[in-house]
Amino acid sequence: MSQLRTAYSNIPDGNGQVGNDMNYCSACGAPLVMKIPEGDTLLRFVCERCETVHYENPKIVVGCLPEWEDRILLCKRAIEPRYGLWTFPAGFMEKDETLEEAAARETLEEAEAEVEISQLYAVFSIPHVSQVYVVFRGTMKRAAFGAGTESLEVDLFKREDIPWSKLAFRVIYEILERYCKDGTHAPVHVGTIPGPPRP
Amino acid sequence: MSQLRTAYSNIPDGNGQVGNDMNYCSACGAPLVMKIPEGDTLLRFVCERCETVHYENPKIVVGCLPEWEDRILLCKRAIEPRYGLWTFPAGFMEKDETLEEAAARETLEEAEAEVEISQLYAVFSIPHVSQVYVVFRGTMKRAAFGAGTESLEVDLFKREDIPWSKLAFRVIYEILERYCKDGTHAPVHVGTIPGPPRP
Repeated sequence: MSQLRTAYSNIPDGNGQVGNDMNYCSACGAPLVMKIPEGDTLLRFVCERCETVHYENPKIVVGCLPEWEDRILLCKRAIEPRYGLWTFPAGFMEKDETLEEAAARETLEEAEAEVEISQLYAVFSIPHVSQVYVVFRGTMKRAAFGAGTESLEVDLFKREDIPWSKLAFRVIYEILERYCKDGTHAPVHVGTIPGPPRP
Repeated sequence: MSQLRTAYSNIPDGNGQVGNDMNYCSACGAPLVMKIPEGDTLLRFVCERCETVHYENPKIVVGCLPEWEDRILLCKRAIEPRYGLWTFPAGFMEKDETLEEAAARETLEEAEAEVEISQLYAVFSIPHVSQVYVVFRGTMKRAAFGAGTESLEVDLFKREDIPWSKLAFRVIYEILERYCKDGTHAPVHVGTIPGPPRP
């Protein structure tokens, strides 16, 4: 997989939901300026009319490794970015839900499969796109699945049949690679996906 | 600690940085409406002029358990909410950093201590305030610390001397309680802090 690893260092890790332009205050509608608020150390978008500070924070992508016997359920993406490439079910965590609820929801939405979340499996930072992946193992309640609206195709793969050359994001590759090496031993993997080299 | 646990079920878990009012589009300044975007299932703030969807996502609070020999470094908060109560160093993750960098940064800012991050220790969802806590163990590089601008006082505590009745948030209590029970064995703890009972 080492040649693939090289190739994967050049693919994007971003996963939809890019940040919106920050031009106007969402509270009062006045134009925003960038400045360091009093008592802070970083430049922020600040409204000089109503004094609201608009913080921008990393986003959580929650994923699931849905297991059925010795196979794992993967989805072929029906959306950009990385249309037509494979991933395990994963997506942006919503407000008002737990990590486990988010992982099960994404599995149901993207792969039409019900899982019992069994274990935290990986926590990966992707600082250059300001994302954190939190990925669980999940046991499928039955061998039933289908393509949700964001998937072209969903299927169960034995570890040796995972489509390594057609995975959507480098973080998916890195986590699946660890999963295949682990066998039955499964610690929580903690890692970072580095950004592209700076020019 | 069981009496304390009851008391802690009624304290807030929110930790500053509440969401801003969403009245106007940050991209173009037009008033926002709430509606379910095409292909989505949830109500979102949407701009009908420029069609930008304004997603609201949970925030990541990153914390550190800074260790020096058999003691742990805690901070007395100099800021609201929970002014004057104790916590381990923790705060909102910034863009462009890893979880480990955030944990070390918060420890430096709040406790003026340098740590080597050693291990992921706890991942807790707090759905009713849309926060996820990611907490690491860290080894202090030397026995040097001080009160940062957000702390009134910083000190090293043996496990039996932790000020249980004066902790700032329930999640802090829950994680420190596990830490004290673990001894030298330290798995990654995964949990949820439930919200207050609904009326």
